[in-house]
Amino acid sequence: MSLLHTIYLVAIAAEAASGALMGMRRRMDLFGLCVVGTVTALGGGTIRDLLIGHYPLGWVAHPEYLAYTVGAAIAAALLARRMHRLRTAFLWLDALGLVAFTVIGCDVAASTGAHWVVVILMGMATGVFGGLLRDVLCNQVPLVLQRDLYATVSFATGVLYLGLLELGVAAGIATTSAIASGFALRLLALHFGLALPVLEADTSSFDEAREQR
Amino acid sequence: MSLLHTIYLVAIAAEAASGALMGMRRRMDLFGLCVVGTVTALGGGTIRDLLIGHYPLGWVAHPEYLAYTVGAAIAAALLARRMHRLRTAFLWLDALGLVAFTVIGCDVAASTGAHWVVVILMGMATGVFGGLLRDVLCNQVPLVLQRDLYATVSFATGVLYLGLLELGVAAGIATTSAIASGFALRLLALHFGLALPVLEADTSSFDEAREQR
Amino acid sequence: MSLLHTIYLVAIAAEAASGALMGMRRRMDLFGLCVVGTVTALGGGTIRDLLIGHYPLGWVAHPEYLAYTVGAAIAAALLARRMHRLRTAFLWLDALGLVAFTVIGCDVAASTGAHWVVVILMGMATGVFGGLLRDVLCNQVPLVLQRDLYATVSFATGVLYLGLLELGVAAGIATTSAIASGFALRLLALHFGLALPVLEADTSSFDEAREQR
Repeated sequence: MSLLHTIYLVAIAAEAASGALMGMRRRMDLFGLCVVGTVTALGGGTIRDLLIGHYPLGWVAHPEYLAYTVGAAIAAALLARRMHRLRTAFLWLDALGLVAFTVIGCDVAASTGAHWVVVILMGMATGVFGGLLRDVLCNQVPLVLQRDLYATVSFATGVLYLGLLELGVAAGIATTSAIASGFALRLLALHFGLALPVLEADTSSFDEAREQR
Repeated sequence: MSLLHTIYLVAIAAEAASGALMGMRRRMDLFGLCVVGTVTALGGGTIRDLLIGHYPLGWVAHPEYLAYTVGAAIAAALLARRMHRLRTAFLWLDALGLVAFTVIGCDVAASTGAHWVVVILMGMATGVFGGLLRDVLCNQVPLVLQRDLYATVSFATGVLYLGLLELGVAAGIATTSAIASGFALRLLALHFGLALPVLEADTSSFDEAREQR
Repeated sequence: MSLLHTIYLVAIAAEAASGALMGMRRRMDLFGLCVVGTVTALGGGTIRDLLIGHYPLGWVAHPEYLAYTVGAAIAAALLARRMHRLRTAFLWLDALGLVAFTVIGCDVAASTGAHWVVVILMGMATGVFGGLLRDVLCNQVPLVLQRDLYATVSFATGVLYLGLLELGVAAGIATTSAIASGFALRLLALHFGLALPVLEADTSSFDEAREQR
């Protein structure tokens, strides 16, 4: 599907740029920025494909994606000083990428005949695991595990997409509707600072138990 | 095998709870707790299956496991304040899970015709890699690499299990014996604080060498 | 190829030793040192094989490699106090391993019919991902992403190797030439402290944008 593929290419560039910019804060060299950018952009789909045994991986079949993410990472690094002007554009592209990755991930998983729960989960993996790997490489607790309406948007997008297909809606319409709705939800979440609750708890006595292990 | 499967279900719930509780200390939101809980519970078996190319993964074939670990993670988060009363129960369940995961992992690896060294290693991977992934996601050096009679118990359980099978003991008896012995060893290790040695060494001059790289 | 295989065995021992020594600094116990050493030595090839779906993994087919890396890790731990005398030897072995891993990784990927870009990338993965996993397990930002003429040497070795094969040079000569050139480049980089640039940038306003996510 041509529109979805175009969105995909824009999204992996945006994600590669986000990875490269975080790598710069860790004082990585140019090679490191390219690795972190590429892992951020393609890592979610790669983990999805490993988990469902879907070979060859996307970037093995289409190595041009690698040139693309490396180019985006280097461009982001060179333009980093001006990135603050691009802040809104970046957040919008990132939101678009999140929902596009989710729909693409659902499609790939569904093509293997997986249960719908697994299909939605693989959509989420495609959407959020790239950023999670980026954070592990940059040695910090993954943001996606701490702030939420990111993963939740991915979940809602996947549920809506599968639900529409289940109701017999044409694939193109289901795709467009899911992406538009997910995108809107993500922008609303950004605008209003929506978030899932963080439970407060004194877990210190439990920690003691762990220490004894 | 019905008993082993029951133990497995109890064990993945206990591991999901342990992951969720550690996630709470990192101030993760509800989604993050569910991810870390699920990865802790199912991550060891997933890595084993990826390494030996055993598809489909357990939770892809049985998505109900995912609902199960998510439920356990949420329950643990809600009950966190009372978890200290459950400390002993938790440690026992965790010990049971460790040995049950090990035996199950050995069975899966043996079914692929792998060498017995690989079978034992895959048993250990099933037993301990979930906790290792939990610690990586929570941005700390994996506990299992620092305190030991955890992995060692898994190793001893696997060796005993394979040894009994090799001697011609019936599968049911070998399973029960290995689980009971491993469980007892783990409880003894907890009770007496048994541990492998940590070697002390001044590695600073070596570090310099690394710095030069 | 016998010489390449011998170099491979020396290299995995050197990498296992490097992993064990870094684990000691994190006060890991003996089991942890063996795990980190083995992951450092065999992790690059394992990730390569997972990514291209090349089963069985090397150490599953040849479990003796595991005994080998465990032995090297324990030996390194016991000899850690004297390791500073071995500093130069270690750096040379590590450089040899890097280029040997790269050539072996290229061969494995090429045997699956992958695109040459993927072949070179898999050579680099084989060469550098073991050290990257070591650093993730030891909870630090991967060195290979921060200091570069390590990965760059791997890249250059792979390009030279594939280029020679493409020009019709015999496999043995291409292998020897690529390893010798890569090795020399690595030693030059060590000697003169060559490195890729680290871009300086004020990314703080971008960070704010991320915070808003």
